[in-house]
Amino acid sequence: MSKPHIILSRPQLGENIGAAARIMYNFGLQNLRLISPRDGWPNKKANTLSSGGGCVVDNAILYSNLNNAINDLNFVFSTTIRSRKYSKEVFTPEEGIKFAKKLIDSGNSVGILFGSERAGLEKHEISSSNAIISIPVNENFKSINLSHAVAVVSYEWFKNIESKNFQIKRDEKELEFVKKIEVEKFVKQLKSQLQQKGYFWPEDKIESLNLNIDNLFYSLKLTSPNLKTLFGIIKSLQKNK
Amino acid sequence: MSKPHIILSRPQLGENIGAAARIMYNFGLQNLRLISPRDGWPNKKANTLSSGGGCVVDNAILYSNLNNAINDLNFVFSTTIRSRKYSKEVFTPEEGIKFAKKLIDSGNSVGILFGSERAGLEKHEISSSNAIISIPVNENFKSINLSHAVAVVSYEWFKNIESKNFQIKRDEKELEFVKKIEVEKFVKQLKSQLQQKGYFWPEDKIESLNLNIDNLFYSLKLTSPNLKTLFGIIKSLQKNK
Repeated sequence: MSKPHIILSRPQLGENIGAAARIMYNFGLQNLRLISPRDGWPNKKANTLSSGGGCVVDNAILYSNLNNAINDLNFVFSTTIRSRKYSKEVFTPEEGIKFAKKLIDSGNSVGILFGSERAGLEKHEISSSNAIISIPVNENFKSINLSHAVAVVSYEWFKNIESKNFQIKRDEKELEFVKKIEVEKFVKQLKSQLQQKGYFWPEDKIESLNLNIDNLFYSLKLTSPNLKTLFGIIKSLQKNK
Repeated sequence: MSKPHIILSRPQLGENIGAAARIMYNFGLQNLRLISPRDGWPNKKANTLSSGGGCVVDNAILYSNLNNAINDLNFVFSTTIRSRKYSKEVFTPEEGIKFAKKLIDSGNSVGILFGSERAGLEKHEISSSNAIISIPVNENFKSINLSHAVAVVSYEWFKNIESKNFQIKRDEKELEFVKKIEVEKFVKQLKSQLQQKGYFWPEDKIESLNLNIDNLFYSLKLTSPNLKTLFGIIKSLQKNK
């Protein structure tokens, strides 16, 4: 499957490039392009911070300017919070990713452009793009760390496009709660043992004491391991030591 | 509005605490709890990396152990990818955040627990929680940086719970495309000028040349500024210099 290209324009810190590469790979993205990284390329700090995502750093492609970096792409998103100044369509990360997938499915190559840590994308960079992705953010504090911005967009990619396998695996192991009959078996045994210990006393409280126990255990969502643990507990508690 | 408490258990690097605080504040979360940070507290690197989110670092509450950190909370989520071993309900970040909001709305306090950079949450920490949040992730590379995990969960909070104002502000300035009549006006003027320049030639091509122009401009999604620019271009091009 073709995937979006993440393009970092004039990134400053190798640490941020490495962290971006790592989170890209966490979320299934591997195509990284770098435009004139301030501290040169390759960069040791990028390798260190990429952790297990080193393959993304190793395969990153270096460009000297924006035009070279996007020439071969059909559609480029700019990521910026200052979307109102530009007469371009503005997408949320989720909308943008879904639209990117549509474009890719119809044979287009797609880039997503992120600006430098200092001030994000410049006007002329945004003008070179087809549309804008804007991350919804606290009006009082809009400045998102570069690798976190890459994280949000990459997360939406994996969540919306690639996570099917992840979901299926989770569903296979979906938590199964025990059937009512198994809870009844437990409650019966518990009550029987409480009976032996003199729990149900005085007589006019028997009904409410029973109801309390029923209310408790029938309202719990219990799994098989939960129930096994409960059986173990009452078995152990009844021992006269 | 009450909001979830982000709880970092045994975080190692001050940098990660600062980066987590910053992205929390980007996404409207301000309650940070720290359990035994390895390098002590306060931590200069946390302050540096928090950037404009320093208020979150300054108000972070320090605890010596997990029990103290969650005692006053009604419901605690663990974040882990190793969800299958535990008989607890597993949520995606979006589902978990929506459930957290329900809990908060009915008067409960909610914590979301993140493990250390080295190996995430330990078994006993997960056992102390009510449910699990699992971030969908590339099966080949599951290890997410601590602050990026906080970023994904905080992003889902802002996106699903708080972003209404953000959305409304965006909608007010929603991109408005010009009406067909305005495009027609432009196309008419363009054709008139092309006519003067001898563009429509030879005669048997007039129809297809016209059709090409119509196809081009009527398929574009043009805004007012776009159209203004186009008028400017043809006005300028027609000048005999």
